Amino acid sequence: MAKDFDVLVIGAGPGGYIAAIRAAQLGFSVGCVERWRTPKGEPALGGTCLNVGCIPSKALLESSENYERVLHKFAEHGIAAERVTVDLAKMLARKDRIVARMTSGIATLFKKNKIEWLRGHGRFASGGNPLRVEVTGEEGVQTVEARHVIVATGSKPRHLPGIEVDQVVIADNEGALSFDSVPKRLGVIGAGVIGLELGSVWRRLGAQVTLLEALPEFLPAADEAISKEAWKLFTREQGLDIRLGVKILQVERNGRTVVVEYEDDKGRQSLGVDRLIVSVGRVPNTDGLGLEAVGLSTDARGFIEVDQYCRTRVPNVYAIGDVVRGPMLAHKAEDEGIMVAERIAGQAGHVNYDAIPWVIYTAPEIAWVGKTEQQLQQEGVEYRSGRFPFSINGRALGQGEPAGFVKILAHAQTDRVLGVHILGAHASELISEAAMALEFSASAEDIARVCHPHPSLSEVVREAALAVDKRALNM
Amino acid sequence: MAKDFDVLVIGAGPGGYIAAIRAAQLGFSVGCVERWRTPKGEPALGGTCLNVGCIPSKALLESSENYERVLHKFAEHGIAAERVTVDLAKMLARKDRIVARMTSGIATLFKKNKIEWLRGHGRFASGGNPLRVEVTGEEGVQTVEARHVIVATGSKPRHLPGIEVDQVVIADNEGALSFDSVPKRLGVIGAGVIGLELGSVWRRLGAQVTLLEALPEFLPAADEAISKEAWKLFTREQGLDIRLGVKILQVERNGRTVVVEYEDDKGRQSLGVDRLIVSVGRVPNTDGLGLEAVGLSTDARGFIEVDQYCRTRVPNVYAIGDVVRGPMLAHKAEDEGIMVAERIAGQAGHVNYDAIPWVIYTAPEIAWVGKTEQQLQQEGVEYRSGRFPFSINGRALGQGEPAGFVKILAHAQTDRVLGVHILGAHASELISEAAMALEFSASAEDIARVCHPHPSLSEVVREAALAVDKRALNM
Repeated sequence: MAKDFDVLVIGAGPGGYIAAIRAAQLGFSVGCVERWRTPKGEPALGGTCLNVGCIPSKALLESSENYERVLHKFAEHGIAAERVTVDLAKMLARKDRIVARMTSGIATLFKKNKIEWLRGHGRFASGGNPLRVEVTGEEGVQTVEARHVIVATGSKPRHLPGIEVDQVVIADNEGALSFDSVPKRLGVIGAGVIGLELGSVWRRLGAQVTLLEALPEFLPAADEAISKEAWKLFTREQGLDIRLGVKILQVERNGRTVVVEYEDDKGRQSLGVDRLIVSVGRVPNTDGLGLEAVGLSTDARGFIEVDQYCRTRVPNVYAIGDVVRGPMLAHKAEDEGIMVAERIAGQAGHVNYDAIPWVIYTAPEIAWVGKTEQQLQQEGVEYRSGRFPFSINGRALGQGEPAGFVKILAHAQTDRVLGVHILGAHASELISEAAMALEFSASAEDIARVCHPHPSLSEVVREAALAVDKRALNM
Repeated sequence: MAKDFDVLVIGAGPGGYIAAIRAAQLGFSVGCVERWRTPKGEPALGGTCLNVGCIPSKALLESSENYERVLHKFAEHGIAAERVTVDLAKMLARKDRIVARMTSGIATLFKKNKIEWLRGHGRFASGGNPLRVEVTGEEGVQTVEARHVIVATGSKPRHLPGIEVDQVVIADNEGALSFDSVPKRLGVIGAGVIGLELGSVWRRLGAQVTLLEALPEFLPAADEAISKEAWKLFTREQGLDIRLGVKILQVERNGRTVVVEYEDDKGRQSLGVDRLIVSVGRVPNTDGLGLEAVGLSTDARGFIEVDQYCRTRVPNVYAIGDVVRGPMLAHKAEDEGIMVAERIAGQAGHVNYDAIPWVIYTAPEIAWVGKTEQQLQQEGVEYRSGRFPFSINGRALGQGEPAGFVKILAHAQTDRVLGVHILGAHASELISEAAMALEFSASAEDIARVCHPHPSLSEVVREAALAVDKRALNM
């Protein structure tokens, strides 16, 4: 007899594994299909985020930032060191240990929650109730049944036609986390989140980094004031060479050099690099999922269509995370997973898509939640804006992190906070208070009335809230 | 004719200077009396906090932590360095530059806000309306008039009878921020916030540190679970030698050694050190303030009595910050300053004393807001508790900061958050979200429903909130 589950989740990335755990907490029998294998061929949970995304990149960002600190920042503190060297293999091994610890942690969580991990590739076999899903793994094909299926198959890197990604010389996010040496010259196609983070890692480790971006603007999703200041910091102070409005014409291997031919407003150009990262976005992952077997299909951009509760047109099939509309962010996927599990249980789970924080883990970090100033202008919303720099905050100076600022946008009449934008050290942590403020429909005055510890970077959030009403205290 | 002001503030520490600025913003003519002089004899604003407290200590904590990182933590990242040395004079000079930048910043703010800085010591000359205050400075005595006076004279270190503080060998917080060499053996009397922070600075720089604490318990103000875990980290992992239940009998100079005779449960003991820090609390500062001239006096512990709005018994005299009841915290003083200025202007300023965060800047940091578990037990409040460790958080692992946990206490019936306790890296920043939660009377469920970025340390706050309902996802 076929195995049967109350809830079957396809994909064990952050969206899928969290959905599986939440469903198990709610008393359902749960299976989770995952085909991922590590470079050593071992099956692993956690998907892109844990294996070749958020987690390993943050480990390398920290390690490389530490190297940069010793080389360039500690002298100011009176700390001198000679012969500072990097053992790249050791740095990468640390990252791999962290990844292994996190992914094996999910395996433990699955056991604890009695979630069955079905190792292999999942494909819808037939619709109805129960739904039938074929899982193709090492031991062949098994068909399982489920009353509800949550598709959480995530996304994969977009590749460019004519550019063969071998993960050694030309890499996407996966290979770029494991280069076996620091390239002297590194090219990055795409100056979005992933390009900036990985470009920063290798720049700090010694590479001369050139980013080629198709769009004419830098980080157009961020608030313009943030993008502008980040541009200055990244290009002038850190030496990232970012070229905008670039059209890639051709990429060729010429011995050990990769030659990128491109066109920008100065005409046809050529860039020779030792390694190339292709980070031009990600596409939803529905290969071989057999959506047609349940009467579903993807939209023109490859996404599975869902409503605000992640319901597809088929009543017992849901889809969450990168494979559906909305930002491709792990925490958005997680919250959708929680929502769907709770709604299957008859609860009122929901996701507030207006309060999902964005983070770019550059140094300094960029984080925001809510609307940008340009969005408010487009929408014709009347707003007031407050801004406060880290450069006059005692904690920021103590930490040697004076760059950046906090900018808060609030409704002109009601003072309700509409957007919070942070460029600065630990922006990824400071943004939580802002996300909570949005969830509570707080006014800028509300943020300003919360007692923030002195000295702390969070005082800058408070001062920016005061600045909305032109009454910042320390400026 | 005597100068006259709408509002005169005595003391330009964080409470006083913020009160002055807020009053000026509200349209009052404002004077601020401050007698502080730097070691070079230059008048300076900012009081203890900026000159010899929060700001310089955080600079040294950061510098010394960086030294510790190079010596002990970077090898794991594959970063090697030889001949790591500290130039203490350079480290101290950096701290002094930050202090100078911050204090001169206030002078600029005073000019911008048209606040007159009266350099000297302030003493009430007579009550009534206007009040008269004598300011004794370098150019003699001047008497000024004010319709309202805000006393913000702060506090000073408590010294112990028979122990002469020379700020060179035996120091309080002031001298301990400027030792001209790293003592081989450092004694600290008092293992409270200041003793732990300054003890940590010098331990990291190479001192063997022994802390002698009168109380039988470690950090009794903190939640017991936090104190217990912090005790383990500080004593076992970091090698701080903390001795509790100690009664100091005598302190003697014996050549270059300071000998501390004390008694604990093992009997009479003797500790020889090269330098000694006395950090046994602080006392309100009302020396020569002439309170009697306006019909006021201090209470048995030396505080000026005020109500919840910082009003004294004299209608146009207010007192804020360390000189009144409540925690001796800069941000508490600031918020009281804002409140008083606003109430003088007829507004409804208030301070929520139940939502003032505490921070101890050790490594890892300790921060909390609201009630501890032992307080709830004493008060007979029914509560539920949720706890989540940093050791299984991807960002904490990436940063190499797995120590500590977040603990959330919520009302058993209503789920309202009653206390949030954090031991961990960047606790001083993570606590802001918790302070906001308390201000909004949030439930633990509310915190859990806020979308927190992945990966971030703030996810641990969320998981602790979920743990209150026994539904942490990653544990």
